[in-house]
Amino acid sequence: MHIGHIFPFYFAKYLQEQTGTRVYIPFSDDEKYVLKDKSLDEISDYTRQNLRDLLAVGFDPDRTRIIVDTADADVVYPLATTFAKEVTQSTVDATYGEPENIGLSFYPAVQAAHLLLPQLVEGRHPTLVPIAVDQDPHVRVCRDIAAKQRYDVSKPGALLSKFLPSLEGPGKMSSSDDAPSILLSDDRESVTDKIRTYAYSGGQTSIEGHRAKGGNPEVDVSYLTLYYFFEESDERVEQLAEEYREGSLLSGELKEVAAERIADFLESHQARRSALGSLEEELSPYQLTEAERQAARRRAGYPDNALSQQ
Amino acid sequence: MHIGHIFPFYFAKYLQEQTGTRVYIPFSDDEKYVLKDKSLDEISDYTRQNLRDLLAVGFDPDRTRIIVDTADADVVYPLATTFAKEVTQSTVDATYGEPENIGLSFYPAVQAAHLLLPQLVEGRHPTLVPIAVDQDPHVRVCRDIAAKQRYDVSKPGALLSKFLPSLEGPGKMSSSDDAPSILLSDDRESVTDKIRTYAYSGGQTSIEGHRAKGGNPEVDVSYLTLYYFFEESDERVEQLAEEYREGSLLSGELKEVAAERIADFLESHQARRSALGSLEEELSPYQLTEAERQAARRRAGYPDNALSQQ
Repeated sequence: MHIGHIFPFYFAKYLQEQTGTRVYIPFSDDEKYVLKDKSLDEISDYTRQNLRDLLAVGFDPDRTRIIVDTADADVVYPLATTFAKEVTQSTVDATYGEPENIGLSFYPAVQAAHLLLPQLVEGRHPTLVPIAVDQDPHVRVCRDIAAKQRYDVSKPGALLSKFLPSLEGPGKMSSSDDAPSILLSDDRESVTDKIRTYAYSGGQTSIEGHRAKGGNPEVDVSYLTLYYFFEESDERVEQLAEEYREGSLLSGELKEVAAERIADFLESHQARRSALGSLEEELSPYQLTEAERQAARRRAGYPDNALSQQ
Repeated sequence: MHIGHIFPFYFAKYLQEQTGTRVYIPFSDDEKYVLKDKSLDEISDYTRQNLRDLLAVGFDPDRTRIIVDTADADVVYPLATTFAKEVTQSTVDATYGEPENIGLSFYPAVQAAHLLLPQLVEGRHPTLVPIAVDQDPHVRVCRDIAAKQRYDVSKPGALLSKFLPSLEGPGKMSSSDDAPSILLSDDRESVTDKIRTYAYSGGQTSIEGHRAKGGNPEVDVSYLTLYYFFEESDERVEQLAEEYREGSLLSGELKEVAAERIADFLESHQARRSALGSLEEELSPYQLTEAERQAARRRAGYPDNALSQQ
C-alpha cells in the first residue's frame, strides 16, 4: 500500500469522528482475483497486510464493519445474487466494456451488495460513499438498482474526491516506472530520499531565480501533499504557499517540511500497526455479528432460517 | 415436483447402492431466483419442499452431501469465483446465448463449483454426472475448466439420460397445458384418474381392433413408464410387451397395471416423506462438515484460515 491508498480511510475515520457515523469497509479480494494475474495465496497475503493497515487507522469498532468478500460470502453472495437479477449484461457491457471473464460480469452485483449493505443491516438511511471518480460507475449501477424500489433502500450518494498527485506531479501522466510511491512501510530516511529526489517542484531552476520570481505551489507536489492531507493547520498551509510564491521559501526547504510531516504521519501509523495483536483477534470486533448478517439477508428478502422452517 | 423430477435421484441412489459411490446433490436456489419470476420466499418454500422429497429418497447420509447454494455460500461462492476467472463471457454467450442478467452470466461458474466439488472435497477422482441432455452444456463448460489443469481435478463425465415421455406420449411436443403431470403428492385415485384419462396409448381404437391387430408398446406411455422405471422385473416388462403386441392385453388393462405400480411407488415415497422430522435435523447429516468445507476451499487454492495468519 502506498500513502494514496490509505487516505480515503483516514478521511472516513475523520467523518466518523465528526459525525458519529457508522463506516462499512468492503474488501474485494474476489475482484482482485478475477481482475489480476495473481494467485489466491498472493491475494490472501495482500488482504492480510491491507487489513492490518486498515486496523491501524483506528476506527471505532462499535461503529465500523469490515467485510471480506470470500470470508463473508454467507452474506455477500446471497445479497449479490438478488442484485444480479436487477442488472442486465448490456448495462455491464455499456458501463465497463465487455468483461473478460464471468467473474467480472457478476462483479457489479457484489459492488451493489457492498454499497447497500449498511441499509440492509440497519434499515433505510442516507449513505455516502467516499470514492475517487473512477469508482463512480459502481455507485451509478447501484443507484439504478436502488431506484427500482424492490428493496427498502435509498440510493447511495457518492462523495467524489480528487486524485492526489503522484510524485511526478499534477497534470503529468502517472507512470509507475517514473518515480517510486511512498509506501506505508517507508521509514523517515526513505521518505526524505524519495521526496528530495522525485517530488515534482513548482520552484525555479536556480536559487537566484527562485528568490526573484518565486515558486508555484499549485503544481508543487510537496506543497499539494501538505495542502491535501499532511499539514493540519490551514493557516500554516497558507503561510507556506505565500512564502513559496514570494521566493522566501525554497523548493528544497518545502520538500523538507513535506518529508517531515509525511514521516511523522507514517511513524505514528506504523507504531499503531506494530501494536496490533493477531489479525483474527483484532478484526473480530469489526466483523458483522450474526444478528447483523441475518438482518441483511432478511431485508434482501431471504426468509429467516430458510432451511429450518417446515 | 412431478415424478420426472425425482427419477434422477432414485437413479443416483441405485448407483450408490450398487457401487458404494458418494453422491453430491447441489440445489440451485440462486439460479432459480435469477432465472424465474419468483420471490425469494417462494423459492425458499420450493427448496424446502424439494429437500423433503429428496430426503425421502433415502440416500446413505454417510456417503451423500446436499448443498444449497445460498445456504452454503461460504464454500460455493469462493469456489465459483475461482472458476469464474477461467470462463470468458464469450464462452457463455456462445454456449447459452446472451444472458438476460449478470446472475445468469455468472451461473456457469457456480455450476462448475457444483461439478468439481466432490473432487475438491475428497481429492482427484473420476466423477459422473447423471443428467438429461439439456444439462450437457454445463458439464462441457466445466470440463474445459478442468482441462486447463489449474486445479488437481479430472474432467467430470456426463451420463446422459433420455427424457421420460410425458403423459401425452413420446414424439409429441410436451405442452404443459395438454395433460397434467403426475405429482409426487398425488394419491392413488388421482394417479389412476390421470393415467386413464391422459396417458397416450399405443393400442387400437376399438377392443375388437386391438384383439385383432395388437398394440404398440414402443409409443405407449403406460408401457414406457413401466419399462423405464416402475416395473423392476425385466421378465415381467417383456411379458407385458408381448401380450400387448399380440392383443391379449388391452390398453385399459395396461393402464391399470401402470397406475398401480406408480401409486405403489408414490405411497412408499410419501410414507418416507411423512416420517421425516424437522428439515433442519434431517438435513444435518447430509451437510458438508467444516473439515470438508475447508478441504474444498484449500484445494481450490484458498489458504487455510486466511484471516488468522499473520
